[in-house]
Amino acid sequence: MPKYTDAMARVYPFAYSHSAAPMHRRELLGGHGADLAEMASVLELSVPPGFTITTDTGGEYLENGWPEGLDAEVAAAVVQIEEQVGQRLGDPHDPLLVSVRSGGKFPTPGMGGTVLNLGLNDASVEGLAARTGDAVFAYDTYRRFLSRYARIVCDLEGEEGEVGLVTVAETRSADDAPGESVEALKRQCGRYQAWIAEKTGRPVPPEPERQLRESIEALFRSGGGARAVAYRDRERIPPHPGTAVNVQAMVFGNRSHRSGAGVGFTRNAVTGADEPCGTFLFNAPGEDVVARISTTDPLDALARAFPDLYGELGQVFARLEKHYQDMCEVEFTIEQGKLWILQTRVGERTGAAALRMAVEMTTHEEKGWSITRAEAVKRITPDHLDGVLHAQFAAHHQPVIATGVGASPGAAVGRAYFSADAAVDAADRGEPVILVRKETTPEDVHGMQVAEGVITTSGGMASHAAVVARGWGIPAVVGASSLTITENGFSVGAITVGEGDVISLDGASGEIVLGAMTVEAAEPPAAFATLLGWADDLRRGRLSVRANADTATDAARARTFGAEGIGLCRTEHMFLAEDRLPILREIILAANPAAELAALERLRVAQKADFLEILTAMDGLPITVRLLDPPLHEFFPPRADLLVKQATEGLTPEEKDLLDAAEALDEQNPMLGTRGVRLGVLHPGLYGMQVRALVEAVLERRTGGFSPVVELMIPLTVTAEELILARSWVGEAIVASVGPGGEAPEISVGTMIETPRAALRASELAEQADFFSIGTNDLTQMTFGFSRDDVEGRLMPAYLAQGLLPGNPFTTIDFDGVGELVAMATERGRAANPALRVGVCGEHGGDPESIAFFVAAGVDYVSCSPFRVPIARLAAAQAIMMQSDSTSRRDSETLR
Amino acid sequence: MPKYTDAMARVYPFAYSHSAAPMHRRELLGGHGADLAEMASVLELSVPPGFTITTDTGGEYLENGWPEGLDAEVAAAVVQIEEQVGQRLGDPHDPLLVSVRSGGKFPTPGMGGTVLNLGLNDASVEGLAARTGDAVFAYDTYRRFLSRYARIVCDLEGEEGEVGLVTVAETRSADDAPGESVEALKRQCGRYQAWIAEKTGRPVPPEPERQLRESIEALFRSGGGARAVAYRDRERIPPHPGTAVNVQAMVFGNRSHRSGAGVGFTRNAVTGADEPCGTFLFNAPGEDVVARISTTDPLDALARAFPDLYGELGQVFARLEKHYQDMCEVEFTIEQGKLWILQTRVGERTGAAALRMAVEMTTHEEKGWSITRAEAVKRITPDHLDGVLHAQFAAHHQPVIATGVGASPGAAVGRAYFSADAAVDAADRGEPVILVRKETTPEDVHGMQVAEGVITTSGGMASHAAVVARGWGIPAVVGASSLTITENGFSVGAITVGEGDVISLDGASGEIVLGAMTVEAAEPPAAFATLLGWADDLRRGRLSVRANADTATDAARARTFGAEGIGLCRTEHMFLAEDRLPILREIILAANPAAELAALERLRVAQKADFLEILTAMDGLPITVRLLDPPLHEFFPPRADLLVKQATEGLTPEEKDLLDAAEALDEQNPMLGTRGVRLGVLHPGLYGMQVRALVEAVLERRTGGFSPVVELMIPLTVTAEELILARSWVGEAIVASVGPGGEAPEISVGTMIETPRAALRASELAEQADFFSIGTNDLTQMTFGFSRDDVEGRLMPAYLAQGLLPGNPFTTIDFDGVGELVAMATERGRAANPALRVGVCGEHGGDPESIAFFVAAGVDYVSCSPFRVPIARLAAAQAIMMQSDSTSRRDSETLR
Repeated sequence: MPKYTDAMARVYPFAYSHSAAPMHRRELLGGHGADLAEMASVLELSVPPGFTITTDTGGEYLENGWPEGLDAEVAAAVVQIEEQVGQRLGDPHDPLLVSVRSGGKFPTPGMGGTVLNLGLNDASVEGLAARTGDAVFAYDTYRRFLSRYARIVCDLEGEEGEVGLVTVAETRSADDAPGESVEALKRQCGRYQAWIAEKTGRPVPPEPERQLRESIEALFRSGGGARAVAYRDRERIPPHPGTAVNVQAMVFGNRSHRSGAGVGFTRNAVTGADEPCGTFLFNAPGEDVVARISTTDPLDALARAFPDLYGELGQVFARLEKHYQDMCEVEFTIEQGKLWILQTRVGERTGAAALRMAVEMTTHEEKGWSITRAEAVKRITPDHLDGVLHAQFAAHHQPVIATGVGASPGAAVGRAYFSADAAVDAADRGEPVILVRKETTPEDVHGMQVAEGVITTSGGMASHAAVVARGWGIPAVVGASSLTITENGFSVGAITVGEGDVISLDGASGEIVLGAMTVEAAEPPAAFATLLGWADDLRRGRLSVRANADTATDAARARTFGAEGIGLCRTEHMFLAEDRLPILREIILAANPAAELAALERLRVAQKADFLEILTAMDGLPITVRLLDPPLHEFFPPRADLLVKQATEGLTPEEKDLLDAAEALDEQNPMLGTRGVRLGVLHPGLYGMQVRALVEAVLERRTGGFSPVVELMIPLTVTAEELILARSWVGEAIVASVGPGGEAPEISVGTMIETPRAALRASELAEQADFFSIGTNDLTQMTFGFSRDDVEGRLMPAYLAQGLLPGNPFTTIDFDGVGELVAMATERGRAANPALRVGVCGEHGGDPESIAFFVAAGVDYVSCSPFRVPIARLAAAQAIMMQSDSTSRRDSETLR
Repeated sequence: MPKYTDAMARVYPFAYSHSAAPMHRRELLGGHGADLAEMASVLELSVPPGFTITTDTGGEYLENGWPEGLDAEVAAAVVQIEEQVGQRLGDPHDPLLVSVRSGGKFPTPGMGGTVLNLGLNDASVEGLAARTGDAVFAYDTYRRFLSRYARIVCDLEGEEGEVGLVTVAETRSADDAPGESVEALKRQCGRYQAWIAEKTGRPVPPEPERQLRESIEALFRSGGGARAVAYRDRERIPPHPGTAVNVQAMVFGNRSHRSGAGVGFTRNAVTGADEPCGTFLFNAPGEDVVARISTTDPLDALARAFPDLYGELGQVFARLEKHYQDMCEVEFTIEQGKLWILQTRVGERTGAAALRMAVEMTTHEEKGWSITRAEAVKRITPDHLDGVLHAQFAAHHQPVIATGVGASPGAAVGRAYFSADAAVDAADRGEPVILVRKETTPEDVHGMQVAEGVITTSGGMASHAAVVARGWGIPAVVGASSLTITENGFSVGAITVGEGDVISLDGASGEIVLGAMTVEAAEPPAAFATLLGWADDLRRGRLSVRANADTATDAARARTFGAEGIGLCRTEHMFLAEDRLPILREIILAANPAAELAALERLRVAQKADFLEILTAMDGLPITVRLLDPPLHEFFPPRADLLVKQATEGLTPEEKDLLDAAEALDEQNPMLGTRGVRLGVLHPGLYGMQVRALVEAVLERRTGGFSPVVELMIPLTVTAEELILARSWVGEAIVASVGPGGEAPEISVGTMIETPRAALRASELAEQADFFSIGTNDLTQMTFGFSRDDVEGRLMPAYLAQGLLPGNPFTTIDFDGVGELVAMATERGRAANPALRVGVCGEHGGDPESIAFFVAAGVDYVSCSPFRVPIARLAAAQAIMMQSDSTSRRDSETLR
């Protein structure tokens, strides 16, 4: 055996005695090689012998070509395999066959593949046929080698069909029909060889050593390929130029009826129950199981057919699970009664299974589990939580007629309606409603409120429809641009859907289906609450999680999901109810101050009732109320509609007034126009009215024995002077509400930080504020100059596709740009006012990567839509652990 | 005489021997007191004796009330006056009368005023009558005292008319009619006294000491008044809480026919000629001259009537002018043949006079002038230059029918037209045209091009109409909201103006006049070029001045005004010509790439012709060409118009296509939508076409013996990746233009910095850029979240009026917020790329205060509209001097 040292070797046999557990040497061996080495050298399972060429060597190759001396190292390692198997590579009578497979540190699509059955040529295939006495097996094996060689070494992916050859999958189907002749398989091998020679200009080399080197080189190259690089960029995997390559002796599941191949999970990957499951294929090679070419049998079939082998497999499963301290996915092959383990890794699982297993593995110490609660929390992903929080389609029977952007997860079935009013009427009749619109505006909100699901044909993840639907937990598909809205329905291709027709939608996948799908209800398992409780223990004192909620219903739901308060209670939706919109319009259109005051007074009474309900729902927890924010023209019908009506039917006097207001309030860029505190400056009575309504509600609840905690938030400030002015309105309104001698409730006053200027001038704003709430949605819009309504449809996809942005900055905060402003606002604000509380509200408050950034920036709380609260609780705990891990790593490095 | 020390005294006699020239002690004495002291103590002119109570004392009063010991100091100073005049305050037979006048460091409206003739009461008025033998004089003097006392001490401003009393002005007119009886004057005095007693609850105090103290207190208080504070805020005068107060013996110009009062300038304040000028009023008090109550005589009248006094005055003028080294404005009174100098200050002047005097005073050393060229440059203000660059109304005869925002200086007369097409037709007929619109859009540009002047009824200083008009030097009044646009004209009050009616406008004052006004043509005097040449000497090497110019005409004009290149050549206007708009629309509507390419090709040819002309006009100087920037829907008719037409007359197939495009391109916030480099990303051929057109023009001009220097600018970048991509288009287009083997012209490539993110990420952008051009207009919009189109009309005035902003940030850069981003972009960009050139384009590039900021931030050049170039040259020189002044002051302080 050649002498390797850890530091220098390019090639490691699987059975090599590493100085550290090989499963942790993924950087060097790649994930695949590390797991094989763990099984072969530590667990001593029956793994076909082989070796790994390191990732560093792959990197070396990309930089400087084939390394000097590598041939000799590979040859020596091959000799080791030959010695163990008792066959020789290229032996015309009994050839050693190997697989050659790439494997980076992370599984990376587009990187490499596997060359199978390497070592055959026109001579040794005859030897294989003779030795096994199975010419069909030998030529099928040769054909499979040639197919892989063509694809992976010669880069002829996907072209086999074009030249009359068929893919492995199709071949196999043909193979299922018994009686395929050796001659037919030979002819196919000949056609592969001719095709490769024609396409590449040279024949398939008969020498196995050359086949091996070419295969290794091809896999090395794939690590530098465009698709792999783009994937790593997108997934933020640090660039590691090299891929490892594993060379392993072949074993065959298609050698007899006491042969076969399977993939098993050490427990139930769907439910998390402690029972192995998986699939098995009798008398078939492993590649067919992985490709799921034939209908596989469940693992039980193996138990019934060969209880001895199933028992042996069960012992391997148990050892692996204990060793990895997690559920494993295991690839195995049985060759003529002998069990070989080909691969293992920690297995994918559903949300319910992930939660159940994570919790069980901390609480069953007697069963050999040693994972901590913190480790359990680390194992849960946001997708796991989403999986148990939202309903899903049970299975896909009906065809998908269109796919849009899955904007709010959950599945819904209902009758299609095309206007908010029609939706409300249908809901009043007791029908389940799917609201279908080109886009939604605040005017559609009453229709959304009654809908089971929402579909729009334009807009993206941050469109009005998406934001509102997520906030309310209504499943939504947006930007379904293949739908054409017609006068009384929509069409897509030849299909037309009219008012009242039943459709279904999946707000996670974005799929729209004609007819009623079966829907699996969302029911979080018991482990859900347990695990999130542990996450809260890890998180508490560092980052609070609040919810964005505008109604008592939302507030109650948020509380159920574990929200520690309301971080953003928007008051604008309160104005949109049918009985209030006219009052708000009166205020804006008021001819004189007395009329304005009278209308304000009526609105105050209505708004107080809303606040009373929310205070009850969130009793004892803080509620941050944002004063009216949106541009006023959102409360009027669209100008163009009124202009058209004026030119055709004519307008009533009331409509004429509305048109005048719409014209007067019309803005070219409402996002940058008269909204937020600017409304207060132009209509000073408005904010005072809102504050009075709130304070009166607080006083009433307090009298009733409740413990209301409220904070007032001024939107869109850019100068300290605005905040001073707004505070003066608040102070006056409190005094007016409490009356002489009354005890004023303690109400802290803060500001949104949602313009770049507010972030830059955070220190002077902080002197006037009890808290900051960083509105990262608007801050992102202004920092980039991206109107999310406008750029998410056409521009953002182009930017992401061309790599001009690392990701959609409305989903995950732009660390380098917007993030600097967030950090600056926090730092400057705290420096000027050490008591300042800093929160983040907006979509990013529910995004795990963004939450990690906010933790690092020292933010006190995030606020997100109620359905994202569990995810935020989890993500915060994980981010805090990651930060303290890296801190303690830094500390221990310093100590050294 | 009491012992005062400079450091401690609260009261200084005018004749006090200060340790430094009193004219430089304005901080302590106020401007008025400093000049009086200079004249009395240094020049020893015949100034009526008096004293100044310091500004510090005024501040002390505002903080802690009447200072202990001040009464005694005032009493002692009064004694000094009494001794010099030979009269005693309160003497019933021959009372000393004094004036009491406030005066801060800077002249400040709303701050104080003057109480005249203080020292009279019901007894001493009789003494005055007896001593002068003129009871009418005595009671008129008493009445004037009471009127001032009511206004200034009792704060009864403007209420005299209401109670049957009349203002001084009206009294005087009555007085002009001879024969007003003593009895009538006495009755009027009585009514004043009764009114004051009724209003304030107490009578006018008869004791002169009390009158004096009350007057001083009232003037102290006025320095803390709201109006004065608001004024100082607006003008950025550092807050100084205290005002000084001057007490001075009265002299009377209304004592005989060898008496009178006047205001003179030591030279002609209109032309700058070396000849005194001014006005004089025989036998009248000074206050009537200042109030310009009667028709005054020119100063020559004094020369003719009393050559001796005129000669004496001339000597005083000469001494003052030499002493102040500048033209002075002088108030004087002649009392019974004795000349008294009451006040002097450096006088206001027209632009032409300012330039002439500044230049002459450096070049006439033999005449006693010692000012340097640098000092001459410091004396010129931007308004002085504006005054000689733009035509103005000669005089106002016709009434002003409306006043809007003066958005582009200059006067214009022409016939009113209400659409761009009608304007073009009229101009084709040879008529001078005034284009009147609600607002303008790029669709109106052809109408603006032919107009003498532009009026809009909405929008502000940064509206489309204002920006375009300033760029082209067309006089414009915008936001004239009192005009109501009707079907075929406009109305304002009872006046209606129809198509073709003659109107005039003054784009500096914002005035609109019915009929044709006489207009004085703009003709910069010889001194204009001389002085700006000196400014250039001071500026060179520190800050270059370029112009924003899109056409050869603009470029040529800019060059005449001294631009050192084009800092911003927008290419969008090149697409708006009637023959090009359809081609651009074709590109956008193109059904297939071939059609798009064909249209691009046609546009390339047209655009090359534009570039050829500009290259000729700017030969040898750099031209920064910005690739297409605006959202594409600007090139389509408004969506609402098409919708209305569709609903009424119906659309042609072509119009239907336009509507589809308008719908598809419609954006909710176009400012934050698909524009700038984003257009290039979605239509990659567009930028390539522009670059090819430019490169071909460069090659052609170079062949023709010219020296074209061009720079290419990528608009609206937010990431380095965009810039890398855009540079690749530029590189490809250059190669394509030059052809194989051709020598590529050197074209530097830079980027606009106009989003906050670009400023934050300046270092990575700088690695890809040869230069930055900071677009402060858009940067201001996004940093504040202010859409200038939307906020300038209603919101900005409210913000300024309520002190929420120190000034309009679109006029002068917001130092604290946007300014930090400008400095950050410059600093980070230079750190990453030391060769980086940094410029500023946008309105701020022509604003003097902003230019001073840019000089401090280390910017290399500014670019502004051609008409602002002279102002920018001047402002840059002044800013550089100010910076080096403060540096050398800091240095010398360090040395101490």
